[in-house]
Amino acid sequence: MAKYTVKIEVRFKPGVLDPQGETIKHALFNLGYDNVESVKTGKLFWVELESNTVENAIQTVRQLADKLLANPVIEDFEVVSRK
Amino acid sequence: MAKYTVKIEVRFKPGVLDPQGETIKHALFNLGYDNVESVKTGKLFWVELESNTVENAIQTVRQLADKLLANPVIEDFEVVSRK
Repeated sequence: MAKYTVKIEVRFKPGVLDPQGETIKHALFNLGYDNVESVKTGKLFWVELESNTVENAIQTVRQLADKLLANPVIEDFEVVSRK
Repeated sequence: MAKYTVKIEVRFKPGVLDPQGETIKHALFNLGYDNVESVKTGKLFWVELESNTVENAIQTVRQLADKLLANPVIEDFEVVSRK
């Protein structure tokens, strides 16, 4: 068994409203950043786990991302790196 | 003026507690994922803005990340991509 760290990126599906991003955009406008056209937000997770192979580690993390880290109705997730 | 999208990754500085990550780790343990050793969380932002050069776009986004997107006491941020 070896230790792996799998990094996951979670973002809203296209067309889903991002109220936090909208709020940040308005706050930036009020701070004088009137050239900002949009702000979108997402989440990052680094999951460190024991596994026999990197493939199994990624498969496990995909499962748990689907169950707990992302809401599949409104969010997509992607494994962006592992080591 | 052209339109750029700058992507920023915000993460806790080393040694800063991540209670959300701890909670996720415990939830995963209760779901049967007893091989997960730690979970760390972070934030992602995609800022779309008008700028004359990509260098200026990145400089602006670095400024606003420092002011609004990251808490410099406990968080680091990094510009991870732009297009």
